[in-house]
Amino acid sequence: MPDTDDTLDIIKPIDTIAWKDGHVELIDQTRLPHETVYLKPESIEEIWTAIRTLQVRGAPAIGIAAAFGLYLAALSSKAESVAELLADLDKAAAYLRTARPTAVNLFWALERLQQKAASKAAEIKAAAAGKYATARQEKEPEDSGGVTALRQVLLDEALAMMNEDIAVCAAIGAHGVTLLRPDMGVLTHCNAGGLATAGWGTALAPLFLAHRRGLPLKVYACETRPLLQGARLTTWELMQEGIDVTLICDNMAGVVMQKKMVHAVIVGADRVAANGDTANKIGTYSLAVLARQHGLPFYVAVPRSTLDLDTPTGAGITIEERPGAEVTSFLGRPVAPPGVKVYNPAFDVTPADLITAFITEVGVLYPPFAPALQAAAAKPFPPYMPNPSG
Amino acid sequence: MPDTDDTLDIIKPIDTIAWKDGHVELIDQTRLPHETVYLKPESIEEIWTAIRTLQVRGAPAIGIAAAFGLYLAALSSKAESVAELLADLDKAAAYLRTARPTAVNLFWALERLQQKAASKAAEIKAAAAGKYATARQEKEPEDSGGVTALRQVLLDEALAMMNEDIAVCAAIGAHGVTLLRPDMGVLTHCNAGGLATAGWGTALAPLFLAHRRGLPLKVYACETRPLLQGARLTTWELMQEGIDVTLICDNMAGVVMQKKMVHAVIVGADRVAANGDTANKIGTYSLAVLARQHGLPFYVAVPRSTLDLDTPTGAGITIEERPGAEVTSFLGRPVAPPGVKVYNPAFDVTPADLITAFITEVGVLYPPFAPALQAAAAKPFPPYMPNPSG
Repeated sequence: MPDTDDTLDIIKPIDTIAWKDGHVELIDQTRLPHETVYLKPESIEEIWTAIRTLQVRGAPAIGIAAAFGLYLAALSSKAESVAELLADLDKAAAYLRTARPTAVNLFWALERLQQKAASKAAEIKAAAAGKYATARQEKEPEDSGGVTALRQVLLDEALAMMNEDIAVCAAIGAHGVTLLRPDMGVLTHCNAGGLATAGWGTALAPLFLAHRRGLPLKVYACETRPLLQGARLTTWELMQEGIDVTLICDNMAGVVMQKKMVHAVIVGADRVAANGDTANKIGTYSLAVLARQHGLPFYVAVPRSTLDLDTPTGAGITIEERPGAEVTSFLGRPVAPPGVKVYNPAFDVTPADLITAFITEVGVLYPPFAPALQAAAAKPFPPYMPNPSG
Repeated sequence: MPDTDDTLDIIKPIDTIAWKDGHVELIDQTRLPHETVYLKPESIEEIWTAIRTLQVRGAPAIGIAAAFGLYLAALSSKAESVAELLADLDKAAAYLRTARPTAVNLFWALERLQQKAASKAAEIKAAAAGKYATARQEKEPEDSGGVTALRQVLLDEALAMMNEDIAVCAAIGAHGVTLLRPDMGVLTHCNAGGLATAGWGTALAPLFLAHRRGLPLKVYACETRPLLQGARLTTWELMQEGIDVTLICDNMAGVVMQKKMVHAVIVGADRVAANGDTANKIGTYSLAVLARQHGLPFYVAVPRSTLDLDTPTGAGITIEERPGAEVTSFLGRPVAPPGVKVYNPAFDVTPADLITAFITEVGVLYPPFAPALQAAAAKPFPPYMPNPSG
């Protein structure tokens, strides 16, 4: 593990998502940077809404929120047996899956909790079968004790997932910082920072670590229309750390490359297919084309929970289309003629061949991506943490 | 000249800039599409402010507004002689030149009026010299009659420029429409429509004409951050004509090309250097790179008043940087953290080699652009109007 001095494995100034006093706590990202409001969702419906309306956003954070959502569903379930609770969890997970279609971490997190629940249920059943077999009773083996135990397993797993994410972000930072050089200009898009994760972020983690190590950088943040995550969230996070950040409109990315103000692009991702095709916030594809045109490296920083190796290529990734009103109005006021047609895809797919490397918690992956991603997915973590002084 | 049935040489639904009852009238483009407010600037200072604050915008419209501004300066001048008035016009033109630095039409229009004034002054002087020589008087030959005549020349030239622009837009439309095919998807950026000119626009003129001819098109309008000319103005103009237009964010241009929804890009320009390098609204360069990546034609529609053949390449074009507040606030409300650094260039330069062709009032120009632009600049107009049925 890296020395503690310059790692990112520490408390962030803002908790994106936390478990406090028996409650989930989410910072409402739709109200940043002007208002710091914490939500305390108490039901799966409130978690669903928080995900759907982008109060919580960023692929890793969505996954963790969904995990807590499943736990809240278990808590409010009227199930009196483990089997009933498992059935309720199936329904709850199916519901949460409908919140947003693109970020694979949502599906990954739910599946992980459901698997954990299923294996705990099997364990309870086996133990109960043994016990009741011994006692020669006819009673149904799963009881309220089993239900309670299953709930606890879900909470434990959600918390483990959150803590893992903090370590994963730190490792992405440590691997990614090796790609940075003093006085580099780095362009990023949307927000793949602390607010998108439980830790210090994916794309931004290397920048935070570089800054902590005294490596000077100039960061350019694309504002990221329509919802301005770059303007509202990325600049705010970087400014809080004292990092030199300049806000640009998305359509200025070409000119900052043309003027050699930018030397690398680092973005996060919502889903990476087995061949390396990458879904990320709308506009990412254009940045990748521009980076290629200017001979700049284009890096995608992702935890392995964002890999979707069951989907062969980007063609298989569902792209969410969101309401046109996100484009036609601004802070509730119209900026386009009433009734104008709008196309508002929330994501696009960058073909693997425009990507220089993936920065993951188990290392920087270069082409050919299909075997590199497969191998990365199989690696243990955290023993592969790099030496931060290297 | 084309038949009248399907040309654009007719009254537009909205007058961008007009001369009515002895007044200049401008539609306030900062308040569109929600409010239709006409300004009646009565001084050169009001014209300067209207140009600076984008109440009037679009390279050709800026040129015409500046011409009227110079006339207003002549009107309010206290000059008692032609020589004094010429000196006042020099000062007035120097002042108007500071309103915005990139669109060359501003400088072109002022120079054209000043040249006209100078040659009228020479004519007055010659006539007066003859008359007074005959009368053997010692009195200064230029008098208040000369001042009045010079003012009239300025007004006549401004009006001629405005009427010419209407014909030029129609001719650009007639040449440009030959590049369009039924059911094409056409992407445009910013607003190079009727609001940017006295006529039907530059980039939009071929689309208006195509529509009038019953040629179905799907237009994609980039919203054009930071000031949303695409969202506010282009969609509005096209919708008023019943043209199928879809609004997208600037960062969605890549994906609509990737998905083959768009088959050509047509933009206007603020200044074209002698080699074809083109300054236009920020984001144009990125669109040109994306068009090249997708094998799509990239057309620049310009009147010859936008050519700056004295500037050899784009490197010589001054690019206006505008206040960061245009990016960080929206309808007066902040959308980014207070104090964030912003880079806000209003234009970028697209290298000539990314441009497929220029659509001008004297024809469609293909590479090599340097000789093509030179030859176009020397052509008479309107005899070169194409046959619209061709």
